[in-house]
Amino acid sequence: MKDQEQTRFQLHESDIPRFWYNMNADSPVAPTPVFNPVTKELITKDALATLFPLALIEQETTMERYVPIPEEVREIYKLYRPTSLIRARRLEKELDTPAHIYFKFEGESPAGSHKLNSAIPQAFFNKISGTHAMTTETGAGQWGTALAMACKMFDIDVEVYMVNASYLAKPYRRIIMESYGAQIYPSPSPSTKIGRSYLEQRSDHPGSLVIAISEAVEVAAESGGKKKYGLGSVLNHVMLHQTVIGEEALKQMDLAGEYPDVVIGCVGGGSNFSGLAFPFLREKLKGERQTRFLAVEPTATPSLTRGTYGFDYGDTAGIVPILKMYTLGSDFIPDPIHAGGLRYHGMAPILSGLYNAGLIEAVAVEQRPVFDAAIQFMRAEVFCQRLNQHTPSELLSMKLLTQKKKVKNA
Amino acid sequence: MKDQEQTRFQLHESDIPRFWYNMNADSPVAPTPVFNPVTKELITKDALATLFPLALIEQETTMERYVPIPEEVREIYKLYRPTSLIRARRLEKELDTPAHIYFKFEGESPAGSHKLNSAIPQAFFNKISGTHAMTTETGAGQWGTALAMACKMFDIDVEVYMVNASYLAKPYRRIIMESYGAQIYPSPSPSTKIGRSYLEQRSDHPGSLVIAISEAVEVAAESGGKKKYGLGSVLNHVMLHQTVIGEEALKQMDLAGEYPDVVIGCVGGGSNFSGLAFPFLREKLKGERQTRFLAVEPTATPSLTRGTYGFDYGDTAGIVPILKMYTLGSDFIPDPIHAGGLRYHGMAPILSGLYNAGLIEAVAVEQRPVFDAAIQFMRAEVFCQRLNQHTPSELLSMKLLTQKKKVKNA
Repeated sequence: MKDQEQTRFQLHESDIPRFWYNMNADSPVAPTPVFNPVTKELITKDALATLFPLALIEQETTMERYVPIPEEVREIYKLYRPTSLIRARRLEKELDTPAHIYFKFEGESPAGSHKLNSAIPQAFFNKISGTHAMTTETGAGQWGTALAMACKMFDIDVEVYMVNASYLAKPYRRIIMESYGAQIYPSPSPSTKIGRSYLEQRSDHPGSLVIAISEAVEVAAESGGKKKYGLGSVLNHVMLHQTVIGEEALKQMDLAGEYPDVVIGCVGGGSNFSGLAFPFLREKLKGERQTRFLAVEPTATPSLTRGTYGFDYGDTAGIVPILKMYTLGSDFIPDPIHAGGLRYHGMAPILSGLYNAGLIEAVAVEQRPVFDAAIQFMRAEVFCQRLNQHTPSELLSMKLLTQKKKVKNA
Repeated sequence: MKDQEQTRFQLHESDIPRFWYNMNADSPVAPTPVFNPVTKELITKDALATLFPLALIEQETTMERYVPIPEEVREIYKLYRPTSLIRARRLEKELDTPAHIYFKFEGESPAGSHKLNSAIPQAFFNKISGTHAMTTETGAGQWGTALAMACKMFDIDVEVYMVNASYLAKPYRRIIMESYGAQIYPSPSPSTKIGRSYLEQRSDHPGSLVIAISEAVEVAAESGGKKKYGLGSVLNHVMLHQTVIGEEALKQMDLAGEYPDVVIGCVGGGSNFSGLAFPFLREKLKGERQTRFLAVEPTATPSLTRGTYGFDYGDTAGIVPILKMYTLGSDFIPDPIHAGGLRYHGMAPILSGLYNAGLIEAVAVEQRPVFDAAIQFMRAEVFCQRLNQHTPSELLSMKLLTQKKKVKNA
């Protein structure tokens, strides 16, 4: 018998998924090619190997439906997984809505976001392939924090290029990363060619995600193989790792005795949303379920709703491989909205393809109503402890699953 | 069969306790009298009723062993309870210790600390007795945040007097409380007599917990019954509410197949430690278990290890009732250590009695080694997301339960 008043749906450690789900195995959209930004030809594994360990390159291109999660990674997932699925009963009441609203609370992670789901395996696969040092970028600080933690666990040095505007506005984030032994550089920094070129334009340059990516990639590419690069979103292997969110949520909706009519998440590069949505999309593609998928992006970087679908650079320096994605152009400079992590010009290729095929819907929202909704959410549900490090707009990344009440059967 | 590698021990919502445990029912130490600070006579319920609703006054003096938790309160506890019990396997490994270390993670609460455990029932019992407004103080901001949240849930206005040093050092805490609609005053403030008297001495007075308490009590006492006062520690009814921590931990240790040899917690006023320890102390007093109890206090406010056991004022203004406790004197000005919530001159009467009777041990530690231990803990266990709002010393309030491995039976 179901507990009619149950609010939190929790799984046991043994329910942590044993496999990541690869959307490419079931997507009606074929994977799009990736081009070398220098030669403009199809990129080779050798070229990617200057940035990534072989295991991650293989995950990037595999067509296997299920990729085993190494036991070492599952063991560390136990730090915070399975995360809770929580029914927002108080919010439902306040909104006076017949909808049943559930959120999957990745904020329970010690990094405060979903980013550890990919940081841990990235550090792991780097470690077992002999990597001793990594580079990365961070916007608001979520990905940098997660990779700093993961690298600490595997004794890997890490340099983080942090968008200067966030570096200045979010000093606590820097302190956390440094407490884990990471080296943090405000980006643009004088330590890279691309960084210096931006500093010449403007010595107090506020930076952008794309500049920070360019710096981190430059350092890895020029390290003679000594440093590898880690990316927190966009790429296939990152989407893959994040599917632990949706796999758990599927089991938890089952515990709740319901199934979502709409799956909602915010999108910057797309990994957060994809991680939740893809396992539900798999069930829909089997023909068993009718579910809508709604990606929510900022009006400041409306890559899905206003961008064009085509091949573009991932950075401004022309080092990062060319990907097919919904893009605003790699030279697009977004407004300095508070959700630094959502300020990326492009969208993950795999998600872009699904959107183009009409399997995913998208909507762009203004910052101000997002803040208002976040305050309403926190007042109703009393989830706020991370307001000082997570911006209200990041509260949206507490992804919402909505279950419309079937009024007839209610 | 037990899972030998299990790290997190989680209970179901239905395991949230249905009763608070009253230590006074089993303590070999009789409850100590409480005196009226004005008449110096035994305080009357009428005098207390200017500050507290009757239900809480009854909880303050009851000798019933178990006090039922109202269903309305249990419903809200579901927001974050049961909290996880986590075995710190990585820390054990790093310390190379035969001890099994478990911590009960009250940081999962939306307020980020254990304080909601008492804020929710305090707001509830005020609400049902007709209270529309409350006053309180806060040191680092934990208690103020918890009461602001709880009052929001029950639509009660709340004024928080925040120690000025914390008000200046922790602006995000203030923003959180204000986001819940609380009014925050830096203490000492010009809005109370006692506040003005301190500001006359020094216009940029850094404040202290005892001054903030005095201000909040003055406002309630002079409101003609319109405003009630809420205290976050020290009093019997607060200790009572916090026992949900230990009741859950008992069940969780059972899930782990172990029983603690030592129960450890930090103490400021004593509610955090008492909440964890008292249910385990009950089991010991039954003669069934041999457990040590260790309270950890800052060397900056060593009330147990350096204070005297006697009757003292709870404030500097002589408004708060006189309690028997280990005290450094109500005029004691502690060093401005980072753990603002631990800077109180006295210790909860009930805990003071148990310490005096030799049932509890205490130790005082310096701030610096606590920071070092916190960094070691966070690097090993990767629990840091709240470093920016919880100081490392507050990480200690992630109370540790230690289980020494019986080497022979291992």
